[in-house]
Amino acid sequence: MNIEMIRAAAERIQGHAFRTPLLNSRFLDQIAGRRVWIKPECLQHTGSFKFRGAYSALSALEPDIRANGVIAFSSGNHAQGVALAAQMHGTSAVIIMPSDAPQLKIDNTRAYGAEVVLYDRATESRDEIGAKLSQERNLTLIKPFDNAQVLAGQGTCGLEIAEDANARGIKNADVIVCCGGGGLTAGIALALEADAPSLRVRPAEPEGFDDVARSLISGQLESNTALSGNICDAIITPQAGEIPFPIMKRLCGPGMAVSEDEALKAMAQAFLRLKIVAEPGGAAALAAALYHPDDIKGDDVIVTISGGNVDPAMFTRALETL
Amino acid sequence: MNIEMIRAAAERIQGHAFRTPLLNSRFLDQIAGRRVWIKPECLQHTGSFKFRGAYSALSALEPDIRANGVIAFSSGNHAQGVALAAQMHGTSAVIIMPSDAPQLKIDNTRAYGAEVVLYDRATESRDEIGAKLSQERNLTLIKPFDNAQVLAGQGTCGLEIAEDANARGIKNADVIVCCGGGGLTAGIALALEADAPSLRVRPAEPEGFDDVARSLISGQLESNTALSGNICDAIITPQAGEIPFPIMKRLCGPGMAVSEDEALKAMAQAFLRLKIVAEPGGAAALAAALYHPDDIKGDDVIVTISGGNVDPAMFTRALETL
Repeated sequence: MNIEMIRAAAERIQGHAFRTPLLNSRFLDQIAGRRVWIKPECLQHTGSFKFRGAYSALSALEPDIRANGVIAFSSGNHAQGVALAAQMHGTSAVIIMPSDAPQLKIDNTRAYGAEVVLYDRATESRDEIGAKLSQERNLTLIKPFDNAQVLAGQGTCGLEIAEDANARGIKNADVIVCCGGGGLTAGIALALEADAPSLRVRPAEPEGFDDVARSLISGQLESNTALSGNICDAIITPQAGEIPFPIMKRLCGPGMAVSEDEALKAMAQAFLRLKIVAEPGGAAALAAALYHPDDIKGDDVIVTISGGNVDPAMFTRALETL
Repeated sequence: MNIEMIRAAAERIQGHAFRTPLLNSRFLDQIAGRRVWIKPECLQHTGSFKFRGAYSALSALEPDIRANGVIAFSSGNHAQGVALAAQMHGTSAVIIMPSDAPQLKIDNTRAYGAEVVLYDRATESRDEIGAKLSQERNLTLIKPFDNAQVLAGQGTCGLEIAEDANARGIKNADVIVCCGGGGLTAGIALALEADAPSLRVRPAEPEGFDDVARSLISGQLESNTALSGNICDAIITPQAGEIPFPIMKRLCGPGMAVSEDEALKAMAQAFLRLKIVAEPGGAAALAAALYHPDDIKGDDVIVTISGGNVDPAMFTRALETL
């Protein structure tokens, strides 16, 4: 895993992924007590950064391998990213989703042309179902973060952050990244190491699900005890990936953790001041910047809004914090 | 008024205004029956395209004139644009606002450093108040659309649309623009005439407030009878400006009109599929593209989302259409 893979991914996704801007608002600067720069990956295709990694991985496959189709396990944003990337490449995607996944996510994944296979979390093993289908149909598994080409795709977001930060003269900033398995965090960290080495990447996680923050302290992969019961579901994983973790360990500063209420308040500020739609997990980094300013050292802070796939009821709940 | 003024404005706003992307979503394409491209000016500073024109006008003033300060009349987006542009130039702004303007807009305008002077619509004349203040303090009036440098600033949005459309090979498209006084519509039309002449600009207005559509038919400036009573308030003016109208008459195709319900539904789609926040008037062009496909000839359609300054209650009302 290296910077050349990220640069190669950037060439492959050019013209297919959106080049998202770097936004800011003086009102958010006032709350945070420093300049706050926002990388709105909710504007990306399928509403999250996951499309970058999925497109990168699909485009890196040998054409005859890709033509057989791909398979992924996901109840969320990775599913939609893989589905659309497969459709854009004219190949098929099978997505294994739990039968209790939100209907909108199931519908969207199907609308991007994927075959959705539902399984019962209580009685069935998704790994067994996936292994059987992969073998029968010769499908290539696209893992959400333990895949070097996926990680390279997420790193393209970091190349853009570096380009925009350099153009604006931002030198001393904490770059806070919404962190689940660590693909986006590690990808951005590698890109910044090469193109904006004075910036420091830090993961943001939900309180009580801060396995990466604890892993960075202990130096080894720590796990979360619970995997549900938090509105920031999009960034909750059992533990970080084996590919991203060593990169984060080498390059990332201390993790930050935010409460559900802080995530909701950050969603409301993104609505009010940036005019963008963030999902709770996607607002974790902004929440850290706005509501934990004393834990940040940089003159500036750069945050990702990693996704915006939120249902109207949850969004309304966030607006009620205003 | 000419393309060179727009190019000069683009140089002046470079690095100060955001370079907004051109977004799309396959889900919106399906509703519209053609590719739909979105220029999200709600992401611009102060939440609307108005910042472009305000910054252009302020930056074009002679420094000693500018140092005396500027004045504007506005209850809405132009007020915030002028206030922030003045603050960025280190000068003062007086904004004359009706005392019944939404508190949030008054607060925001003040937060951008402007002096807000409130007047009673029923008993006071804003023109008299403005004339008196301008004379006493030697302030320069920045009109919202009948100002060539403002129009040049709005035209920079058109240069970006042309650049992105050309990069994507979009040749035969209707470009639908949310239209009040006509500054954005005429500015984009001039920019496209120069840089993407195969694209055709068309104004979108609220039903019952379609003075520009009627003016394009009659060939002379028509007026609206009512000036309130529609949620698309941001794009309702008595009539189009004297500078933009001849440009629209020469370059623009037939106007389109949308209902309040269509505007709300378009806001909901912008939330669901683009992850952006549109105000009702800012969603008029998207509503025209989605819900009046038979009135559009282009293979593709490009629409502006002209602003996103909407309060939570109105936004929730839009989400309830889903």
